[in-house]
Amino acid sequence: MPVYLDHAATAPLRPEARDAWLTAASAVGNASSIHGAGQDARRTLEEARERLAAVLDADPIEVVFTSGGTEAVNLAVKGLWWARDETTDAVVLPDGEHHATLDAVEWLEAQGAEVRHVRLDAVGRIPVGAFGGALAGAALATALVANNEVGTVNDAAALADAAAAAGVPLHLDAVAAFGHLPVSFRGWRGSAHGGAGLVAMSVSAHKIGGPAGVGALVVSRAAEMTALVHGGAQQRRLRAGTQDVAGAAAFAVAAELAAAEREAEAARLSALRTRLVGGIRSSIPGAELLGDPVDRVPGNAHVLFPGASGETLLFLLDRAGISVSTGSACQAGVPEPSHVVLALGRSDAEARQVLRFTLGRTTTAEDVEAALAALPEAVERARAASGPRTGRAS
Amino acid sequence: MPVYLDHAATAPLRPEARDAWLTAASAVGNASSIHGAGQDARRTLEEARERLAAVLDADPIEVVFTSGGTEAVNLAVKGLWWARDETTDAVVLPDGEHHATLDAVEWLEAQGAEVRHVRLDAVGRIPVGAFGGALAGAALATALVANNEVGTVNDAAALADAAAAAGVPLHLDAVAAFGHLPVSFRGWRGSAHGGAGLVAMSVSAHKIGGPAGVGALVVSRAAEMTALVHGGAQQRRLRAGTQDVAGAAAFAVAAELAAAEREAEAARLSALRTRLVGGIRSSIPGAELLGDPVDRVPGNAHVLFPGASGETLLFLLDRAGISVSTGSACQAGVPEPSHVVLALGRSDAEARQVLRFTLGRTTTAEDVEAALAALPEAVERARAASGPRTGRAS
Repeated sequence: MPVYLDHAATAPLRPEARDAWLTAASAVGNASSIHGAGQDARRTLEEARERLAAVLDADPIEVVFTSGGTEAVNLAVKGLWWARDETTDAVVLPDGEHHATLDAVEWLEAQGAEVRHVRLDAVGRIPVGAFGGALAGAALATALVANNEVGTVNDAAALADAAAAAGVPLHLDAVAAFGHLPVSFRGWRGSAHGGAGLVAMSVSAHKIGGPAGVGALVVSRAAEMTALVHGGAQQRRLRAGTQDVAGAAAFAVAAELAAAEREAEAARLSALRTRLVGGIRSSIPGAELLGDPVDRVPGNAHVLFPGASGETLLFLLDRAGISVSTGSACQAGVPEPSHVVLALGRSDAEARQVLRFTLGRTTTAEDVEAALAALPEAVERARAASGPRTGRAS
Repeated sequence: MPVYLDHAATAPLRPEARDAWLTAASAVGNASSIHGAGQDARRTLEEARERLAAVLDADPIEVVFTSGGTEAVNLAVKGLWWARDETTDAVVLPDGEHHATLDAVEWLEAQGAEVRHVRLDAVGRIPVGAFGGALAGAALATALVANNEVGTVNDAAALADAAAAAGVPLHLDAVAAFGHLPVSFRGWRGSAHGGAGLVAMSVSAHKIGGPAGVGALVVSRAAEMTALVHGGAQQRRLRAGTQDVAGAAAFAVAAELAAAEREAEAARLSALRTRLVGGIRSSIPGAELLGDPVDRVPGNAHVLFPGASGETLLFLLDRAGISVSTGSACQAGVPEPSHVVLALGRSDAEARQVLRFTLGRTTTAEDVEAALAALPEAVERARAASGPRTGRAS
């Protein structure tokens, strides 16, 4: 078994979530069917919606199940834009968002959207002032609750307040935060009124021990949003298609478990991360933790190894039985510098010399020591492979 | 256990598909991750793609996994329209299509699409001549391989040839046909050239014993199509998001089993359906089979019960332990006349007096006899409930 330190790419399926899937999938019935079998499926589905809503601090009717975080983000961003007031085409987009958001907005730009970029600070946080300053008259704004690469936590409440004050609908991408940090749709809506302020929030199941292919978008009742997938009366007509009852049931179970364990796990993973980062710093000259050193996703260690190609490091560690990432798995195979690291004001070379270690539920102290044991040689070889100082950040 | 005669709404999960899901879901790894765990997941995914492609008679690279048939249809219809030549906004839309198509096209109409409707014949078949006649200069055309309500089978090869001849890209919705009728993407492409003729075909897993929340759109390499869900480099950039490896594996297993059993099951289900329809006709005055009497989905019996509300019948049968449908489950709960029955030239009253019985893998002769035993009293009571001749078709 390899040492798996890539929980942010996908987390191991929880046994309880698997069992919930099996139970629900073994029943026959389309949740939209009127007969008893359909209504049984419907009850299972609505119970899952209620349980997930409770964890998200939202109303059940606000929970729209999707096929994952990416679809949820696309529904939010495109759905708000399509339903916009005709007087505005502007989208407020911080740098360093997930590619689901970036690519959705890029597509909208080709459809006529005006994109207002907001620069991150040096640790990858969205400056509330700059964000607020970009909002006036915008059709929508979007922001990560926590950055999925460098782990930095944003001030979601302040971003939502700014959007509410400006009268702009806000989507929060909580995929990387959910299960690891406090997440409260109702709390963050705060001063929201009608369709302004926080109106939508994306989450994903497989990041917290639920199955892949399942996610949700929390959509405020007051939100003006157009569907991405049309075709039926399901889910407030915001998301058509036969509902994945088993996936929803498994997601709800995983969410409840993650919530119940969250504080204890945050402490445990923070301690492991502190050991990992400390060990890296003491054994590898020049290694630098990126992102906010304190206010970050507990299990996230995002490290710059000057002079060492992240991709080479990833391969060498993989050969040593350690699974890590250079950034978002969604962009894997695309040999580009991390756009998040660039958004921190780092150089193109530095944006190719990073590794993301993400610890999770199954991570042990032994896993961390195994990574620390393998890293020095891997970094030395990666630095040697890239030649004398070539690619080294200046 | 109720007698489940609603296999077209959703079919029972096959044990082999469940086991494939469990095996794949128990492995850890995002199929987009570069490390070994990710590549293992990738291999499972690509093997599933190859196996599904073989059943669909398509190339593996043409198979784009989606969250189901509805998303596949939306991707095809909207994706082809967004990628259209600027000289045309026309969509060729036969009456009686599934709501996934109807609602997607209706939305495009609000975005500026010109919709060219094609009327069905009296058994619910798309007339090839009328379809061909509507194609000139269209941006795209779409058609069902088999109607999901009345079960009538279209001449997919002829529709595809007409589209190829007209230089128009065609999407075929094979959701109701797949697993029950011969389906061949390569065969139907026939005279297709480049982006014209058959370029896309939708299928769904849960209709054939795979899990809900999984489907696929077969997309020809030559097709010009814009993504519906943006955000990553997955699946030829046509469908972003972490791929549901377990769902894909389960779908492939279900598809192979359905294909292996297809001919034997078609004969078995046709015989059961013949018994069902014959029994209904002999015991219930005025009952009429709608759709093509011969060239239909083997397990489909769609029956008009003049003077009896379909919804009342559904409830009475449900109370007797028989699960049936009034039409598409996706529209259940919406008390509207079936648009498919209306498209057959029937009255609004008749379109509310139908039941769809769909037999499948687990259906037995006893199930059919149980339905036949329950029907006469149910029809009598439903007719009595609707009053003397009220709502009776003229």
